[in-house]
Amino acid sequence: MSTVSHATVDVPPLSQAARFTIDTPALVVDLDRTVASIDRMAGAMRDRGVALRPHAKTHKSIEVGRRQLAAGASGLTLGTIGEAEVFVDAGLDDLFIAYPLVPSGPKAGRLRSLAARARLRLGVDSEAGVRAIADALGPDRRHVGLLIEIDCGARRSGVAPARAGAIAAAATELGLPVLGVFTFGGHSYDSPDAPSAAADDEVRSLTEAAASVRAAGVEPSVISAGSTPTALASARGPVTEERPGAYVFGDRQQVALHALARDAVAAVVAARVTSVNEADRRFVVDAGGKMLGKDVSPYVAGHGEIPELDGAVIARVSDYHGVVDVVPGASLPEIGQVVQVVPNHICPVVNNVDSFLVARGGDIVDTWTVDARGRNG
Amino acid sequence: MSTVSHATVDVPPLSQAARFTIDTPALVVDLDRTVASIDRMAGAMRDRGVALRPHAKTHKSIEVGRRQLAAGASGLTLGTIGEAEVFVDAGLDDLFIAYPLVPSGPKAGRLRSLAARARLRLGVDSEAGVRAIADALGPDRRHVGLLIEIDCGARRSGVAPARAGAIAAAATELGLPVLGVFTFGGHSYDSPDAPSAAADDEVRSLTEAAASVRAAGVEPSVISAGSTPTALASARGPVTEERPGAYVFGDRQQVALHALARDAVAAVVAARVTSVNEADRRFVVDAGGKMLGKDVSPYVAGHGEIPELDGAVIARVSDYHGVVDVVPGASLPEIGQVVQVVPNHICPVVNNVDSFLVARGGDIVDTWTVDARGRNG
Repeated sequence: MSTVSHATVDVPPLSQAARFTIDTPALVVDLDRTVASIDRMAGAMRDRGVALRPHAKTHKSIEVGRRQLAAGASGLTLGTIGEAEVFVDAGLDDLFIAYPLVPSGPKAGRLRSLAARARLRLGVDSEAGVRAIADALGPDRRHVGLLIEIDCGARRSGVAPARAGAIAAAATELGLPVLGVFTFGGHSYDSPDAPSAAADDEVRSLTEAAASVRAAGVEPSVISAGSTPTALASARGPVTEERPGAYVFGDRQQVALHALARDAVAAVVAARVTSVNEADRRFVVDAGGKMLGKDVSPYVAGHGEIPELDGAVIARVSDYHGVVDVVPGASLPEIGQVVQVVPNHICPVVNNVDSFLVARGGDIVDTWTVDARGRNG
Repeated sequence: MSTVSHATVDVPPLSQAARFTIDTPALVVDLDRTVASIDRMAGAMRDRGVALRPHAKTHKSIEVGRRQLAAGASGLTLGTIGEAEVFVDAGLDDLFIAYPLVPSGPKAGRLRSLAARARLRLGVDSEAGVRAIADALGPDRRHVGLLIEIDCGARRSGVAPARAGAIAAAATELGLPVLGVFTFGGHSYDSPDAPSAAADDEVRSLTEAAASVRAAGVEPSVISAGSTPTALASARGPVTEERPGAYVFGDRQQVALHALARDAVAAVVAARVTSVNEADRRFVVDAGGKMLGKDVSPYVAGHGEIPELDGAVIARVSDYHGVVDVVPGASLPEIGQVVQVVPNHICPVVNNVDSFLVARGGDIVDTWTVDARGRNG
């Protein structure tokens, strides 16, 4: 190995004994780092007097959700009805589905059944969505709370702040209680300089949207912002709730965005070196796109990083191959060696596995289920 | 809708009744197109006198594998021991794991158990891999057959053709039978002009590699090439076997590469329009990266295509959102509308779901399990 490391992440310890027993590729989550991140975010929100409702799509795990609630989260955020069903089945029933729901077809019955079992908040961003939710819930509609989604610059779902009042009025007219407004400053992921401005956009858009629903006769009790890179900065002003997700495990993106310290990343993929090409200065690990996902970012090179190999970057992935081109001066690893790969974006990686290994002090101490894996609708 | 369609794929029919009952997002596979593709590839290989051993990582489905075998495939190709275990459990036991295996740790016992139940061919590309396989199999090593992996230009795993003989000799010395050599012309995916040259590279490299193992005293009985874009063109000369995978369902990439006709794509993701932003000329469907994957190609725009909406392209995906920027002149869809999205690359999409719907004449007639979903190691 060269003496200069290009690693951007300090991975948790992983003992030689653990490396010998892990059936690669495997997702490994460091318990102490996860607990520290859960506590740190909970404490930061407590200090700011803002409710924390972590997005559970990152971990899809009942065990992790329970720990977030025990640390002070007011409830959980989910992305789909399918995820919410899994958490309700486990008794975690204070849930916000932060998505513009249009529960037509089979989703109507599923939503009604879910609403009967949970304290449910639902996202919506259109009059058509309001009508679909009202139709789906029938007379039970009074037991849910709607949050109107605002687009604050992420160019995804959500309406302009000034449109919030009209949707709130449509909901009120159909007997659907409106709790407030929410947004996701997803443009915080655009570049390492983006989070600060995106947090400002969240606050400004939500302030305008709150005024819009007030003008429509609804006093918003929930004003909710999201995203790990913006959570600390937008937890102010009228914002009553934050919904970060990725902070719990972390990844290369979060470190590059300065949203997490380089030694706060808790999740790695343990992978085995399966091929080394000395002539072409290249090696292959057995974690490819079906494990690491294929998220790329302009500010994160390649598809994953191997800190212990001088920060070697996975340049290309196919389904079962992660390919590293070795930089000049660095030596090649041994075939058979087990290494820790830090993924670019943790959420899709978790969704690729049925369970993950839990490590403490470098040893594997438990296996936790990805209870809502694949519940993506 | 504008009258000019930019669609590159002709999707199968999907009735309004089916759209009403599908719980989106869902993978839908057209049965007749799948059967036609299975038969077409089997017939093409029969005409060429070359064995067909389809790569089952695309479908991970026992039912599809059975149909490929019934149509004349000589066996199946897998990418991992985990996939092979699933197929062997179902009685499909003539299997080639086309990966440079290094079965250390828990993989050793799994491989030994698998070898006892299957007619197994194993990929290898190093002396270290040969030793690991020999150690894992113990006295049973005589019942498997090794294929040395050759890099023909894909810059992934595999050795230079001239290195094949040394690895064959190392295997022979340890009592491991060597059947021959294999390669994957993965650089066929580089551009629409690439497949023809990549097929030539497969043939040339395999010819050299066969000579190399012959010089080491092994007469190769299997000379195996792969990839859907190269399968027809490299099924000649010394090549005895082809291992295409994606042809069975198809995707946008295969059409762009001229490997499949535009009306041969069998698999789509049924998704619902959940958000429409008229002011910003944008809409969202409920299939994001956790459904469509995040494969991108220089020759395929965005993350998926919606032929029925003038070939609208999904410009951005997050976990549960597929975002379309509507081109000038095209109209916006209705909120709630169910549309068919053609993925860029089908293999990761299949791995995202536990099962898929089977359609015939536009109606849903069955549900098939993705038996080896998540068996990626």
